[in-house]
Amino acid sequence: MGTEVPRLEGIFPPIPTPFDAGGDVDLAALAENLGWWSRFDLAGIVVLGSNGEAVLLDEAEKLRLVETARTATPEDRAVIAGTGLQSTRATIALTRAVAAAGADFALVLPPSYYKGLMTDVVLERHFRAVADASPIPVVLYNMPACTGIDLSAELIADLAGHGNIVGLKDSSGSVAKLGRIYGEAGRDFRILAGSAGFLLPALSVGAVGGVLALANIAPKECTDIHRLFAEGDINTARETQIRMIAPNAAVTRRWGVPALKAAMEMIGLRGGPVRPPLLPLDDAQRDELHSILIEARILEPKKKEATR
Amino acid sequence: MGTEVPRLEGIFPPIPTPFDAGGDVDLAALAENLGWWSRFDLAGIVVLGSNGEAVLLDEAEKLRLVETARTATPEDRAVIAGTGLQSTRATIALTRAVAAAGADFALVLPPSYYKGLMTDVVLERHFRAVADASPIPVVLYNMPACTGIDLSAELIADLAGHGNIVGLKDSSGSVAKLGRIYGEAGRDFRILAGSAGFLLPALSVGAVGGVLALANIAPKECTDIHRLFAEGDINTARETQIRMIAPNAAVTRRWGVPALKAAMEMIGLRGGPVRPPLLPLDDAQRDELHSILIEARILEPKKKEATR
Amino acid sequence: MGTEVPRLEGIFPPIPTPFDAGGDVDLAALAENLGWWSRFDLAGIVVLGSNGEAVLLDEAEKLRLVETARTATPEDRAVIAGTGLQSTRATIALTRAVAAAGADFALVLPPSYYKGLMTDVVLERHFRAVADASPIPVVLYNMPACTGIDLSAELIADLAGHGNIVGLKDSSGSVAKLGRIYGEAGRDFRILAGSAGFLLPALSVGAVGGVLALANIAPKECTDIHRLFAEGDINTARETQIRMIAPNAAVTRRWGVPALKAAMEMIGLRGGPVRPPLLPLDDAQRDELHSILIEARILEPKKKEATR
Amino acid sequence: MGTEVPRLEGIFPPIPTPFDAGGDVDLAALAENLGWWSRFDLAGIVVLGSNGEAVLLDEAEKLRLVETARTATPEDRAVIAGTGLQSTRATIALTRAVAAAGADFALVLPPSYYKGLMTDVVLERHFRAVADASPIPVVLYNMPACTGIDLSAELIADLAGHGNIVGLKDSSGSVAKLGRIYGEAGRDFRILAGSAGFLLPALSVGAVGGVLALANIAPKECTDIHRLFAEGDINTARETQIRMIAPNAAVTRRWGVPALKAAMEMIGLRGGPVRPPLLPLDDAQRDELHSILIEARILEPKKKEATR
Repeated sequence: MGTEVPRLEGIFPPIPTPFDAGGDVDLAALAENLGWWSRFDLAGIVVLGSNGEAVLLDEAEKLRLVETARTATPEDRAVIAGTGLQSTRATIALTRAVAAAGADFALVLPPSYYKGLMTDVVLERHFRAVADASPIPVVLYNMPACTGIDLSAELIADLAGHGNIVGLKDSSGSVAKLGRIYGEAGRDFRILAGSAGFLLPALSVGAVGGVLALANIAPKECTDIHRLFAEGDINTARETQIRMIAPNAAVTRRWGVPALKAAMEMIGLRGGPVRPPLLPLDDAQRDELHSILIEARILEPKKKEATR
Repeated sequence: MGTEVPRLEGIFPPIPTPFDAGGDVDLAALAENLGWWSRFDLAGIVVLGSNGEAVLLDEAEKLRLVETARTATPEDRAVIAGTGLQSTRATIALTRAVAAAGADFALVLPPSYYKGLMTDVVLERHFRAVADASPIPVVLYNMPACTGIDLSAELIADLAGHGNIVGLKDSSGSVAKLGRIYGEAGRDFRILAGSAGFLLPALSVGAVGGVLALANIAPKECTDIHRLFAEGDINTARETQIRMIAPNAAVTRRWGVPALKAAMEMIGLRGGPVRPPLLPLDDAQRDELHSILIEARILEPKKKEATR
Repeated sequence: MGTEVPRLEGIFPPIPTPFDAGGDVDLAALAENLGWWSRFDLAGIVVLGSNGEAVLLDEAEKLRLVETARTATPEDRAVIAGTGLQSTRATIALTRAVAAAGADFALVLPPSYYKGLMTDVVLERHFRAVADASPIPVVLYNMPACTGIDLSAELIADLAGHGNIVGLKDSSGSVAKLGRIYGEAGRDFRILAGSAGFLLPALSVGAVGGVLALANIAPKECTDIHRLFAEGDINTARETQIRMIAPNAAVTRRWGVPALKAAMEMIGLRGGPVRPPLLPLDDAQRDELHSILIEARILEPKKKEATR
Repeated sequence: MGTEVPRLEGIFPPIPTPFDAGGDVDLAALAENLGWWSRFDLAGIVVLGSNGEAVLLDEAEKLRLVETARTATPEDRAVIAGTGLQSTRATIALTRAVAAAGADFALVLPPSYYKGLMTDVVLERHFRAVADASPIPVVLYNMPACTGIDLSAELIADLAGHGNIVGLKDSSGSVAKLGRIYGEAGRDFRILAGSAGFLLPALSVGAVGGVLALANIAPKECTDIHRLFAEGDINTARETQIRMIAPNAAVTRRWGVPALKAAMEMIGLRGGPVRPPLLPLDDAQRDELHSILIEARILEPKKKEATR
């Protein structure tokens, strides 16, 4: 990883993909959102992640999104692009393509369709082949809720020895495992929490930041937790962490991307529709989401335009 | 479903995709295999299924495979093509494309990446949208071991009311559920067992056939079970069923596609390599597989060339 | 197993334990129920099973129940008593005690609290120790929905070689596995389906009967399926099997023992309350259960008193 | 909770039950162990927990263990006794009996056999009934790896409102959930980490201590993490936390109670045999365990007698 590459440390929102009324990618809306995120102390963004509906996009759409993300993101901030596909060769091809389009890091989900066959041996060969072929550093992406595969601590620590595998985004929430990886993988291996729900606990065992859906709508609170922890003010960090649990659950585990996009609209960002089979929130869910955002002080009805 | 369409009843091998030494699709090898399967009393074939490594193929490869499959399969036998993708629009596009390429039925996996959001409501809209748009009849494909989603009996029975959803391939092995679907979905809804391991039990509660990986290497035994059951000879059917359990497990749950391709080579078909991340069997696994095939009388070493 | 012992073949209801209004065991109610079941062509009964709320009983209650069950059951019918506890020594002690109280067979659940430690080696030692010490033949009881442990086919086939382990009640519903066990364990090993939902499929791969919650309220239909299968009339057997799926689900997977006891009251048997923490059905559930029983022709409102 | 009751805060080892060569409870060995633990800055002990093989003990054994534990533990330290059984009435009876025997708190596992029926409504009634009847304060015990039931945050927060339910031991490791409970249950509700693997992360979101198997063999390290965190020295706390991950995994998730007892023997405590069906470690496992303890500096071969 050359010195010119932005650092893999701090808070990264995994940005949603805005669609227009016809269901096509809306790059102007994306650029507008990126402009807003640029005002906060974020370390970069993740494009083509789970929250970006990457599995619902075609390849041409993906590359346009990376190009726009790179252009509309400050140069000193990282653009991390999700590139994990089911076959090794397709993953390599997409990784090369996003690198050419300007991505700084590739975030690579494990192949997962043939779950019963995805032994550590198989997964290790896959990730090494991708890392060998990738022109940009690779970040492992552990997301068992979506893939049905939970990368083992042994495998991750082993892969951390590869010169082009530089970190891990972990969405499993198993902080005991993160502690173990921190102990075994070496201090240069960058661990990022995959959800704001356990950001502070992850930091306590060695994570250096997070890729957090919530950071799309609460970038200040997420960066506050990171900063307060670094400053040693655990008590204030904890209060913010606790306050973020309900809104984080709403836009992740409970209602997912449809809620994240609805929340973005509520705070003035360009969320737009989700792509089917995903369905938008119904009215009752939207009302509950709105209350949760107000309760968490992410949304302040009276001065919303002014502050956001 | 017009009268000219082959019937969805009987035994269908979900055919593997042969690759050449360079890892590319080998259509000549496919045609050769199809010639051999044509000699048995099979009802058709499934192309682009799990055993066809569909998730590891690109779209152009998929369409060439369907075209070759249709050309090299007798006209009165069905060519069923797997078309389920993560987005509704991509699934519709692929379904239309395989129909244009000659497929008689579309076999549609549920979207599964956003598992937590795939409620019955979401899945019903998805499948109805696909069925509405599809020029060919749709067969639902329930494969929880790969997708992490187990389609509910309620959902399946409900979807069976759609005029263009004509059947189900079920690989869950829950025959209590199949019985319930048989009772609720109407007798025109075609239930196909998704694995030879429970073919006879599935027939006992109303299934009309099976899509069976084992049928690639043991077509006679699989069609025998189906025929013997229809003739009322349960005892002989059971003996064949029991004999098929070990080889079926070997080429499905235990070792999957790599074992199926290895077994094909052992009986004289064109199996070829798997596509990474899948790895070929190691020597010990191959030896054990060989013994299992002999024990099950699928492979008869001394007269192998003569009979196969 | 001596010749005087009743045979382990046919249909066995796992009988509920009646409690009086004060929550204590009501042996008179039990005897009354047993009198009714004796009128049907059942092969015996299971006492102290999951449906008997065995885990909610103390040891003195258990032994009184076995004594009453043995006294009130025809001599040529088997009384099978559940004796599986967490420790090997307690399981042996209870097995000996129920044998002394008159049980013909012991039905033994695996220990399950230390799930992560229950390897095949551990379980094999446990079952062999129990079988070695038991004065009556042992039937293995696989009930993953309650124990979280799914006994492997290898383990079961291996244990089938023990002279005092004579059969298996399987509630997993995996008929592929039952077929494998039938093929490997030897034809003297008795396989019993653990739920009416898959009785016919289980018979098709070699089971010789079933321990069926539904047989408590629909003994005729359950024994019909078994008899029709034996006579080779699969089509009629299937129609009964399909009709039994909804009521079976109601008294097992959906609502469990509370629904079974409510259904018993509806057909004129002595059900009585469940023991806390179990709660009785609420009114809406009772109404739905009533409709399901009528729909399945288990309950015929107008001539209910006359026929039951 | 009266002022005379020891506080539920700090580190508690869930103590193993020593058996003699004949397999019976060895109270003298227990007292000897308790003497050693008394030298460390522990807040008390848990008797009759999972590590105490409680499910393998009979009631008379349980009460003798509580009596001995209370007698051999300093008065200002809490004796917490596990009392959760499958039936509500048996749980109440045992809770009353351990209170009479001197326990300060009851640690109550949820009933779990009828998993499918254990809704929040059922569990809430159960825990409230136990808490209403208990003469001592109740601590909820969430242990999904053993029970197959994961108590919901909603249920726990709701139960925290009961005047006699004062805390939670959570072994799930989901620190996001602990944070949520901390936020919702009120600051008087005591959250205890259920495993040393996530002690520091749990403290970071509001836990006040832990019930830690590892504290049996590494009481100083466990209390160090707690103390260092309270002093604001996260970096040193983290180093100890990371060092404890491997030995903690060895005596919990990997090898469980047999490893914990073996490790106790290695450091000079009275471990003794496990009760069947549990099996002792084999030689290879013992060697690996020994290495892990040395690596973690829990065991220092050359000066072992001197320091422990």
